[in-house]
Amino acid sequence: MTIDEIRSEIDRLDSELLRIFNERASLALAIGHIKKEKGLPVYDPTREKKIFERIQAQNPGPLDNQAIVRLFERVIDESRRLERIMTAEKTGR
Amino acid sequence: MTIDEIRSEIDRLDSELLRIFNERASLALAIGHIKKEKGLPVYDPTREKKIFERIQAQNPGPLDNQAIVRLFERVIDESRRLERIMTAEKTGR
Repeated sequence: MTIDEIRSEIDRLDSELLRIFNERASLALAIGHIKKEKGLPVYDPTREKKIFERIQAQNPGPLDNQAIVRLFERVIDESRRLERIMTAEKTGR
Repeated sequence: MTIDEIRSEIDRLDSELLRIFNERASLALAIGHIKKEKGLPVYDPTREKKIFERIQAQNPGPLDNQAIVRLFERVIDESRRLERIMTAEKTGR
């Protein structure tokens, strides 16, 4: 493959990432709504621990587990941030 | 959907993310090898600029463009880090 061909492939993967990042954030928002309705706590460290264990156990590489954890920390952090923005907009705070 | 059903869906997306993160890192490594062979500079700010422009133009939300940029900065940073690790191992440095 030439550099240009590999770059096209990377662009294709980036479009997939863009879709999944947004889809995942929407689902996290949906969980936030349900939790709010039911009066459940928003932050669930057990659930996050499980996510990190699962992805590390499944990681085929070449990225090592520390890199994978850093990537998913960012993914989870952006969902949480979005939830804060949405909540602030609704309550006017 | 119940919280458990939404979580299963998130787990499915996380497995996809795990696959794509690793696939993208492998492709970035492949480009690194070609560049090295041809004596081309590794860092290409024009290419990165294009990636960021493209994903922001395509972003459907709910994540805003700043969130998307932060996510892709992490993705690109981990590829670069991997490349440094691989190069260091080969040269024994």
